[in-house]
Amino acid sequence: MLIRAFVCKSNPNIFHGRTMYMDYVLAALPLVPSLVCLAFVKNYDIIPVILWSIVISILGFVLTNQMVPIFSQYTLKRGLCGKDLGKRGSPSESKDVPEALGIVCGIVFLVCTICSQMMFAKNETQMITYNSALFSICFMIFLGFLDDTLDLKWRYKLILPTVASLPLLLSYSGSTAMYIPKPFTTLFMHSGQLTIFGSIVNFFATVDTEAHGAIIELKYWFLLFMGLQAVFCTNAINIFAGINGLECGQSYVIACSLLFFKMYEISFLHDGGENERFALLTILPFIGTALGLLRHNWYPSSVFVGDTFCYFAGMTFAVIGIHSHFSKTLLMLFIPQIVNFLYSIPQLFKLMPCPRHRLPSIDPATKLMVHSTFPCKAEEFRWFKVKRDDTVCPNCTVICAVLRVTGPLSERTLCIVLLSLQVSCSLLAFLVRYFVLE
Amino acid sequence: MLIRAFVCKSNPNIFHGRTMYMDYVLAALPLVPSLVCLAFVKNYDIIPVILWSIVISILGFVLTNQMVPIFSQYTLKRGLCGKDLGKRGSPSESKDVPEALGIVCGIVFLVCTICSQMMFAKNETQMITYNSALFSICFMIFLGFLDDTLDLKWRYKLILPTVASLPLLLSYSGSTAMYIPKPFTTLFMHSGQLTIFGSIVNFFATVDTEAHGAIIELKYWFLLFMGLQAVFCTNAINIFAGINGLECGQSYVIACSLLFFKMYEISFLHDGGENERFALLTILPFIGTALGLLRHNWYPSSVFVGDTFCYFAGMTFAVIGIHSHFSKTLLMLFIPQIVNFLYSIPQLFKLMPCPRHRLPSIDPATKLMVHSTFPCKAEEFRWFKVKRDDTVCPNCTVICAVLRVTGPLSERTLCIVLLSLQVSCSLLAFLVRYFVLE
Repeated sequence: MLIRAFVCKSNPNIFHGRTMYMDYVLAALPLVPSLVCLAFVKNYDIIPVILWSIVISILGFVLTNQMVPIFSQYTLKRGLCGKDLGKRGSPSESKDVPEALGIVCGIVFLVCTICSQMMFAKNETQMITYNSALFSICFMIFLGFLDDTLDLKWRYKLILPTVASLPLLLSYSGSTAMYIPKPFTTLFMHSGQLTIFGSIVNFFATVDTEAHGAIIELKYWFLLFMGLQAVFCTNAINIFAGINGLECGQSYVIACSLLFFKMYEISFLHDGGENERFALLTILPFIGTALGLLRHNWYPSSVFVGDTFCYFAGMTFAVIGIHSHFSKTLLMLFIPQIVNFLYSIPQLFKLMPCPRHRLPSIDPATKLMVHSTFPCKAEEFRWFKVKRDDTVCPNCTVICAVLRVTGPLSERTLCIVLLSLQVSCSLLAFLVRYFVLE
Repeated sequence: MLIRAFVCKSNPNIFHGRTMYMDYVLAALPLVPSLVCLAFVKNYDIIPVILWSIVISILGFVLTNQMVPIFSQYTLKRGLCGKDLGKRGSPSESKDVPEALGIVCGIVFLVCTICSQMMFAKNETQMITYNSALFSICFMIFLGFLDDTLDLKWRYKLILPTVASLPLLLSYSGSTAMYIPKPFTTLFMHSGQLTIFGSIVNFFATVDTEAHGAIIELKYWFLLFMGLQAVFCTNAINIFAGINGLECGQSYVIACSLLFFKMYEISFLHDGGENERFALLTILPFIGTALGLLRHNWYPSSVFVGDTFCYFAGMTFAVIGIHSHFSKTLLMLFIPQIVNFLYSIPQLFKLMPCPRHRLPSIDPATKLMVHSTFPCKAEEFRWFKVKRDDTVCPNCTVICAVLRVTGPLSERTLCIVLLSLQVSCSLLAFLVRYFVLE
């Protein structure tokens, strides 16, 4: 198959020097579109913001890169570590890998953001934006670290992010109206009259009849949507995980996409106001710190990022989505996570058996990753199986689905394939937002 | 001696039922002055704020009280526990005591404060106040928990609180002038002229000559002072600790004193504005959650509060001091902590040997606490010793100093003596603020 032929299955340890340089090139690729946009920026007022963000994100990268090994020693010493299940059968199988290194990334990010706040938050509205953003992100880093150390129950993971996002929603100053793309306005209004669907929607929210159904004023429903999105974002990255580099890599790709979207707007659509400034000043340090962590978490990984990183990244995206008035587009960048969540529902809600770990298995002979399975009866779950009468069923994750399509892959290659998928979804989101739904 | 005769040295286990009721009475005492003030409130606008704070703090108490045993199981399971050094020689000596239960208190407090924010933060200034307060407190809880799990180095404990207090200082909206009490104005100005000391001060800040030296505009120095105070508060409670109930108890006493000061102002001096509302809405839930934790941390203690609680409490006081424009009075409530810090300096800065733990020792015969010592030569540290030629020197802490005065005490009695000392200092601060320096 084409995909099988495309992906390199060579043992990465053999050509480690070469793969390492290739990895650096791959890591730089998602940043290229934003750099291209930089050449087209016409509003010189925003240049200091961009320059400052670049400088602070480089500092963030250096600091994270330096501090991760130091904090690895702390976590190892206190037994906050785990075994790399992706290295089963290899000599490093029994080695303790330090856990929860997302704290370094998170703390450095907070420090960077406080510095940006000191430089650029000049009026009251901006102070509110920054302070609520800092609180929500800090609370999620704390909660993530609490989960890594104490292994919290699901109820806490749903209740506490909801509470943490309340100050964020309280300080939301943007519109609560939803702009309906032209092709869909006829769903709500037709020849000057509300349609049946439009009337139902009008019962809960307000369909703007003067705008011919192009604007729906959602009011509190919009706040509810954003609150749910914050909870979703924080958990979605955590579920779409299991191999080294994936949590950090997907967050990096999403962040680069957000950066590109904002840079595209600043360069080609409008000059960029407060929202764009805030987004740049937040997303660039995130990219810097995430890259600093990814360097240590990339194959062959020396650290785990932990739930700390997943929650931190998720909440950062939610914050940027909310304060930068970007929440619907943000959802499109989460397509792989959404698909993974929907596909996981049968196992998450215990409709199908759910093993403790659903990450891919290692084929002892080839040391390559294959999709993992759980035992079941021949007549059960036929839709989900490889062959209808198998007595094992693959786990319902996008990772296992990809492995079924590509065949066995090394951990590094699998991660690159999954991240390419993430990049493709970002491209799709870009096309949909700026060309299809314009 | 009088003090020796006064304090009860009976083994608390014998009369446990009676001492338990006595403890409840003792715990309620610091709240009495505020309750008395409540009867004199003349501004009915503030009544809903007071009622809401009382309700939310009772909920905070109940929730903390319920959740502490649940989270104890979490921390025990993950090995986040320690031995109670104050129980050496007793059967429960080797029992694991769950550590860092301050997280429960801290999280419940954050949830309570978010609820208050939703109810009462109506304008932009208040939103900034709440969000910056939430962030700083949350960051310190996180840092405290990090310290409890990873045992951070001193440099992190000084740098990170400084950074955490920056958003707080950025959002400070009050005056940066210091009002000099009348007896001291002559230090700065005399017969219409700046004194030599006044001129030196005027070089760094601005002495208001029109106010005859009663006002000194400190500008950035005041922000620096508040920043240092935030770092001091977070660490001071942590140093004045070592026996069960003391960290939590002293914070409770300080909080009750703050509450009384604010209630006194509302009832007798002026009607109470934004600052007073914010202080009430923050300090009452703190009292509720701290009491909920104290119940489990009081002798015979079943949990440790950890650095998490100390940092949380310290930052909460700093936040109230800053946002409620109360920072100089706050310093007076910290007299035992300041004395303890100054007295500890020789050991903290390694001018004298500093053992890992400086808490009191247990006398194996009587099971009572006595002051702990470190070995030294006969000619060393003569000023600090009990007898000039001893070959041991008592540790430089207020706890050991008190034990030298009172003689051996049970842990519970020692804690009550220390807390009484804290109460006396609050009374002194009250007299100084409202009667001496008026």
